[in-house]
Amino acid sequence: MTQPTYEDLEKHYSKFVSTNSMRKKLVSFWHPDPKYAHLEDDDYLKSKETKEDFIPLSLGLPNSGFFPIKSMDLNIVDHPFDKSSNLHKHNVATVSKETPVEMDLPFVLQYGDTKGLSPMLEFIENFVKSVGNQPLYNEWDTVIANGSNDSLFKIFETLADETTTVLVEEFSFVPVLSAIYGAGAKAVPTKLNIPVVNKDNYEQTSTVPYGKDDEGIDVEYMSNLLDNWSLGPYKHLKKPTLLYTVTTGQNPTGVSTSMEKKKQIIALAKKHDFIIVEDDPYGYLRMPLYNRSNPDENIYKSADFTTKRYLDDIMIKSYLSLDDDGRVLRLETFSKVFAPGLRLSFIAGNKYIIKQIHDYTEVSTRGASSVSQSLVYSTLKTMSKRDKKPMVEAWLDWIIQVATEYTERRNATLKAAYESEAFKKGYFSVIEPSAGMFVDFEINFKSLNGEFSDIEGMNRINKYFVKNGLGVVLAYKMALDVELSKDHCGLIRTAISFADEPKDLIEAVNRLNMSCVEFFEKRLGN
Amino acid sequence: MTQPTYEDLEKHYSKFVSTNSMRKKLVSFWHPDPKYAHLEDDDYLKSKETKEDFIPLSLGLPNSGFFPIKSMDLNIVDHPFDKSSNLHKHNVATVSKETPVEMDLPFVLQYGDTKGLSPMLEFIENFVKSVGNQPLYNEWDTVIANGSNDSLFKIFETLADETTTVLVEEFSFVPVLSAIYGAGAKAVPTKLNIPVVNKDNYEQTSTVPYGKDDEGIDVEYMSNLLDNWSLGPYKHLKKPTLLYTVTTGQNPTGVSTSMEKKKQIIALAKKHDFIIVEDDPYGYLRMPLYNRSNPDENIYKSADFTTKRYLDDIMIKSYLSLDDDGRVLRLETFSKVFAPGLRLSFIAGNKYIIKQIHDYTEVSTRGASSVSQSLVYSTLKTMSKRDKKPMVEAWLDWIIQVATEYTERRNATLKAAYESEAFKKGYFSVIEPSAGMFVDFEINFKSLNGEFSDIEGMNRINKYFVKNGLGVVLAYKMALDVELSKDHCGLIRTAISFADEPKDLIEAVNRLNMSCVEFFEKRLGN
Repeated sequence: MTQPTYEDLEKHYSKFVSTNSMRKKLVSFWHPDPKYAHLEDDDYLKSKETKEDFIPLSLGLPNSGFFPIKSMDLNIVDHPFDKSSNLHKHNVATVSKETPVEMDLPFVLQYGDTKGLSPMLEFIENFVKSVGNQPLYNEWDTVIANGSNDSLFKIFETLADETTTVLVEEFSFVPVLSAIYGAGAKAVPTKLNIPVVNKDNYEQTSTVPYGKDDEGIDVEYMSNLLDNWSLGPYKHLKKPTLLYTVTTGQNPTGVSTSMEKKKQIIALAKKHDFIIVEDDPYGYLRMPLYNRSNPDENIYKSADFTTKRYLDDIMIKSYLSLDDDGRVLRLETFSKVFAPGLRLSFIAGNKYIIKQIHDYTEVSTRGASSVSQSLVYSTLKTMSKRDKKPMVEAWLDWIIQVATEYTERRNATLKAAYESEAFKKGYFSVIEPSAGMFVDFEINFKSLNGEFSDIEGMNRINKYFVKNGLGVVLAYKMALDVELSKDHCGLIRTAISFADEPKDLIEAVNRLNMSCVEFFEKRLGN
Repeated sequence: MTQPTYEDLEKHYSKFVSTNSMRKKLVSFWHPDPKYAHLEDDDYLKSKETKEDFIPLSLGLPNSGFFPIKSMDLNIVDHPFDKSSNLHKHNVATVSKETPVEMDLPFVLQYGDTKGLSPMLEFIENFVKSVGNQPLYNEWDTVIANGSNDSLFKIFETLADETTTVLVEEFSFVPVLSAIYGAGAKAVPTKLNIPVVNKDNYEQTSTVPYGKDDEGIDVEYMSNLLDNWSLGPYKHLKKPTLLYTVTTGQNPTGVSTSMEKKKQIIALAKKHDFIIVEDDPYGYLRMPLYNRSNPDENIYKSADFTTKRYLDDIMIKSYLSLDDDGRVLRLETFSKVFAPGLRLSFIAGNKYIIKQIHDYTEVSTRGASSVSQSLVYSTLKTMSKRDKKPMVEAWLDWIIQVATEYTERRNATLKAAYESEAFKKGYFSVIEPSAGMFVDFEINFKSLNGEFSDIEGMNRINKYFVKNGLGVVLAYKMALDVELSKDHCGLIRTAISFADEPKDLIEAVNRLNMSCVEFFEKRLGN
């Protein structure tokens, strides 16, 4: 027998692969090995040159310290239909008496509803209502999916095909393009306002309120683009029927869309009849205004801080809460506030579209892991019992604690950045986030009087980052059209989520500072 | 504001739904509410007429007594980055010291590899090898999916499109058609040999060995169909590039394909260059030959029964084990031997095709729930420690225990059936299974001298089943072409998996008997 090689297999079997599947390939901005996601392929090979204690701020992962459960004990039976109370104790101490009756284990381990297990769905709907995100119309619904990547896939499979154009923020979560292109559709970038804090405006910008109205989607640009579609640069494409937006703590820029801006965008959506796909993984990770005169201030930590205040003053409500005709699809995930390994997310929107997504789910994944659903539900129920509060309240308490920790990290990062030599010399600006997992910096290559382009500059300075042991994402790799985004191709995305402690972030800013000083003051590239 | 109704939403938003998605609708043979899956829509409305203690043998679900864990205790932290050992005790007793180091909780809760968590994948590959299922070539691989429904979806999305024809057993697991049609492909039925035991051949058929060569796909029919494709009834379609087969304990007929027959089918696959999609959810639920002179015999229970004997004499090996050029894709699931709520399955096959499926997974679901993966892995590891055996051995022990219980159930069902008045009078025949979750019966409408068709007969007799409190699946609803399958449209599928105890199955057979006697002896329909 002749052993077929991989190439033999490819040669013979490539004819079996469907055209539909051929275009379903991942579009990513990271390296295949996530540990080296910050590196160019070349650099990857040379990565031994970097420091031992490399800080990978390029990784948009939450630290495991954010996960609400410490361990999971399994009570294992000795044989099928084991009725004895003499259960095997290797991995467990007592049979839990606290399991919610509505979510007991035989129910959890059995086939579950495709839409989601009913107690979990009830919690989710109740939560959407309790935080004030429910739409203004009644015929809305929710469906559970296997993480927001799966939600996005199903949404674009359901709503997009070869004839579809999707508006996407100029910098975006790149893998969404896999879902858009995978469905055969086209993506068109729309501009963002990305206000920066630099040495010159540092004093004037210190009192910007939460949810700054100017940051996020550039409504004027988008409005002009749509009004003049048939004359514009994308006139060969159909007018967009979908807008994809990461609403709060946008990935990668960190900007958040205010309610005022959401109203304007809803109005545009009605005028031009498109659907808003609101991806909001970081929506609950809101941070109070950074207080420059007291960088350690974190109002979440004040004794009289309440969930009411969080909901009324700090959280930005969903586009859904402004939606009276069903044109918003909201995506939430448990990855950021619970844990990514769950693969658990949901979509809320109008019943008709949710039914289409549900139908698609029925023939593909069916329900998300019931084990994951039960893990979340049981944790919330336990928190509720422990704290003697309704589940929604107990869960909000946890969310606020997570947001508190993110605020600490953001504060430590900003403080170090503003105090740095490189900031004071104008080598970089700061995009001050009010939500999410990212603090972005913009390297001011302009000060080099056009010696080279932002992109060339980024590729040069990144070598300094790597040498100094700092991993970041070069935001231009997340731009749909670097020409359109050339004013902001000096952006870098740093994730404040993965580090073990805020002091690691301070060290990271030190390395950013050192890299900028070295780069700007030698200005030799290498 | 005017509230949009569901119809308004449908009217406005249907134009957004992609043509690709429009054809992704579930094809099923059950009622939307699984509790009433056995009923026609009409009957559903009248279902209050049936008995209180209705036995739903129509449900192909495992009883929760088959699940290997009894409870799951969560150790919940009080706040993010809680380092205290003073963990919250509501739902847990001690921090587990037995968690496998290669699968600790921070790892499990984090984003995981799309292919599967590496310890789980290693176990799976080791298991495939240990049971003797590995292919004859080296370039094979595995990928984890979210249950076999998801595996099937991804396989047909990847390998089928509008130009594809798929061969499917004449009676089949109907939802697979959703995946085939969803990809735009066509399904063509191929005949099965379904040997029955009836009052006339009862004596002669008592010594048929395990894996009867004659049951399963009718190789001669398939061979003729393919050899004469351009002259046959499907000449308007392209020649098939895929065969979908449920290999062991076929759903719905319960038949199993012998190794001898697998060799013939592999030869056909080579001759006509098609891929074999081997769906084998029941592969490990093999039952030793039913001993008519001693129906209680269950050799699994003999003291000297070994896993070696199970592997050598009882389990039927995969098509993979005969595959030397990469044309077999094997689907396994943890739903039947562990629990369906996990949504955990895997596909094994040639590296090139597995990579295509992996790429598709990358842009859709990404990895299956890591929590589910860890639940299985940790359970197996605990079994291994408890029993002081390698994980594969410990897991095989569990599998054999599950198969033992299925054998008990099969034996009880067959014994009651063969002893029944209706069998002895020739009103029904038995398809004696050697694997899986189903015992099928064939109602002998032929004895009524063509008074009505099998299908009409089935619809009439089903009213007796319902009246007597028995739920079954009418197999003709799982036929691709009732005309082609008209000789076997009297088949009914009963699942022996969902009942709590074998005695429930004996009662179910009593009801089957009573229904047949009433029907045949009154012969009035209703």
